[in-house]
Amino acid sequence: MTVTLHVCITCRAGQTVPEGQPTPGSLLHRAIVQVGAPPGVNVVPVECLSACNQGCSVALSAPGRWSYVYGRLSEEHARDIVAGAATYAAAPDGLVPWRTRPEIFRKQSLARIPPIASLPEAAE
Amino acid sequence: MTVTLHVCITCRAGQTVPEGQPTPGSLLHRAIVQVGAPPGVNVVPVECLSACNQGCSVALSAPGRWSYVYGRLSEEHARDIVAGAATYAAAPDGLVPWRTRPEIFRKQSLARIPPIASLPEAAE
Repeated sequence: MTVTLHVCITCRAGQTVPEGQPTPGSLLHRAIVQVGAPPGVNVVPVECLSACNQGCSVALSAPGRWSYVYGRLSEEHARDIVAGAATYAAAPDGLVPWRTRPEIFRKQSLARIPPIASLPEAAE
Repeated sequence: MTVTLHVCITCRAGQTVPEGQPTPGSLLHRAIVQVGAPPGVNVVPVECLSACNQGCSVALSAPGRWSYVYGRLSEEHARDIVAGAATYAAAPDGLVPWRTRPEIFRKQSLARIPPIASLPEAAE
């Protein structure tokens, strides 16, 4: 299954970013793209994940799976983020055993959301 | 559209909960149920939204919509949570104008996640 890794590109991570300079969020996005999206992972920039007081953030999601949001991230975490996204994509149900998650995913969770129910009227 | 309001019932909100006593999360869930689910809102208890250091939390989600997670909540917010969920359910696209969101939704956002893409292979 292809999963989506959303990267907040507007995040200023609490800093004052001079006009014309890249935000920490856009730098994180660039670093992730440079590491390269692994098979089954679609990297998508997004404007604001509403986790603004938790530094730069990313979200992992896919149809029928739990979604996860991680925060307090920076460029140096790009490789671990990509590795964690690859593991999520490869897990048949998106449930990655705790021990095989990157440390940043274990310690920097902001939230998770259960799979979104497709109720009958929503499928019409 | 029917939307889902997940309520974390395992949240201890940083407190030591004596054996056999209800958790703050379960009290919040009970208070929300007592207020009553408005039309189009399905209240679902969940074990852990992984926002453990942000007090009690709830998540709003629905197919094709942005999902939202709110934290630092307690029983006293039950009525506002229900009102906010009703507004989310009633908005044609789930996008509720900022001013019409309850104050707790404006100030206590933990994260939001874009609508989950249904990519071609996921629809197979």
